[in-house]
Amino acid sequence: MGKFVVIGERIHCISPVIREAMATRNPEPILKRAKEQLDAGATYLDLNIGPAERDGEELMKWGVQLLQENFDNVPLALDTANMKAIEAGISVYNRSKGKPIVNSADAGDRIGYIDLAAANEAIVIALCSKAGIPSDNDERMSYCQEMLERGMMNGMEAEDMWFDPLFLVIKGMQEKQVEMLEFIKMLSDMGFNSTGGLSNVSNGMPKHVRPIVDAAMIAMAMQAGLTSAILNPCDQRMMETIKSCDIIKNNYLYADSFLEM
Amino acid sequence: MGKFVVIGERIHCISPVIREAMATRNPEPILKRAKEQLDAGATYLDLNIGPAERDGEELMKWGVQLLQENFDNVPLALDTANMKAIEAGISVYNRSKGKPIVNSADAGDRIGYIDLAAANEAIVIALCSKAGIPSDNDERMSYCQEMLERGMMNGMEAEDMWFDPLFLVIKGMQEKQVEMLEFIKMLSDMGFNSTGGLSNVSNGMPKHVRPIVDAAMIAMAMQAGLTSAILNPCDQRMMETIKSCDIIKNNYLYADSFLEM
Repeated sequence: MGKFVVIGERIHCISPVIREAMATRNPEPILKRAKEQLDAGATYLDLNIGPAERDGEELMKWGVQLLQENFDNVPLALDTANMKAIEAGISVYNRSKGKPIVNSADAGDRIGYIDLAAANEAIVIALCSKAGIPSDNDERMSYCQEMLERGMMNGMEAEDMWFDPLFLVIKGMQEKQVEMLEFIKMLSDMGFNSTGGLSNVSNGMPKHVRPIVDAAMIAMAMQAGLTSAILNPCDQRMMETIKSCDIIKNNYLYADSFLEM
Repeated sequence: MGKFVVIGERIHCISPVIREAMATRNPEPILKRAKEQLDAGATYLDLNIGPAERDGEELMKWGVQLLQENFDNVPLALDTANMKAIEAGISVYNRSKGKPIVNSADAGDRIGYIDLAAANEAIVIALCSKAGIPSDNDERMSYCQEMLERGMMNGMEAEDMWFDPLFLVIKGMQEKQVEMLEFIKMLSDMGFNSTGGLSNVSNGMPKHVRPIVDAAMIAMAMQAGLTSAILNPCDQRMMETIKSCDIIKNNYLYADSFLEM
């Protein structure tokens, strides 16, 4: 098994600072967040430009080039509801450090993102849902199968489809967590890669509680077989936990200094 | 599923303070450590008097009565190589808060601890090893079966046999961890209870690293299905993680204050 893949979530237009920087094409705040995340151990960076209906293509190109030129062709997840913007981003993307990730397809309205990824030899995050939250793992698995077939038909490699089990908020859906973890195990047993928006689980919890619950969840999910997550790598407890689980899973060799690496 | 059962490990004659207190029958250091562990969230306390060949029976009785009288009949794990001392301890043990735990049997020289537990209607920790470290899970499982049969023949309930997969030190046996976790999953799938000496995994690691690795391991083990562990409940990160995993496993209901409970 390879090391767990951390996709840094912090270059996201939902942040006022980043939205402003994107709107004015101001590199500094974006480069700052990129550096923080890479220093903390992120492998991929997510570049979320929002719906970006007006100038998405030009904005995504700008963002991809900005990040890759400043950080040695750092691999990126391109994240927007504007499909043309993703294609534009890929057109200027340098693959030397890893394929681009298309974020994200689902089995409903966004099924076309799989075609887009296939056409561009990209990785795709494939959310195992159609409209709303899947009611159980049979439903999750049927969406997984639909998306897998779509990808295969388009010539994708299964390893380039990273299935997202859909992490659910504990406050309100506490009784759904075990099943979601079992779904990750099912994906893992079938040999599939997986990823997801981890920090969703602790939404609404007190601020001091969130990193504690997030770290517990990532360890449980890694034991279940999760191979990647979209998260905040600047959360120290989270990254310490991921590195420890990687050691326990024998994904790389233990050294006394492994937390600093 | 019930809440994860924490067995506090800190009343152990390997500690000079505790050894001295046991030798001189000085209650204070023992009561202090008991209170600390119970305040931190331990359910059971382990009472390890060592080999205690000379005065084990009297010492174990003294310890059991001391702890149960001062802490509302706190349930205890009686831990010694002296079988008569365990029997003596059980003879004065109050079961109102839980059966005594006999710590511990194995499939080798200590198989008789199962008979002892059966004869005294106690729980037994059953280490899945015979002589040395089992080479793989087939071997672990064969010992588990041997001990299970022995317990059944003696009229024990399976739920009173808590199988110990034998946690192994990561430094030196890193490549054995995944298999050990898989064994916990096998025990869990068969419906068995399990426990073990968790902090063994981080032996020899730098002091600041140990709680981080221990917490990652307990979360992975709980995801695999571990139902109990023998550990230091005064390790805050460990207890926060256990409580969080219990919430994720829906073992009790989430409240914003769950870490304080």
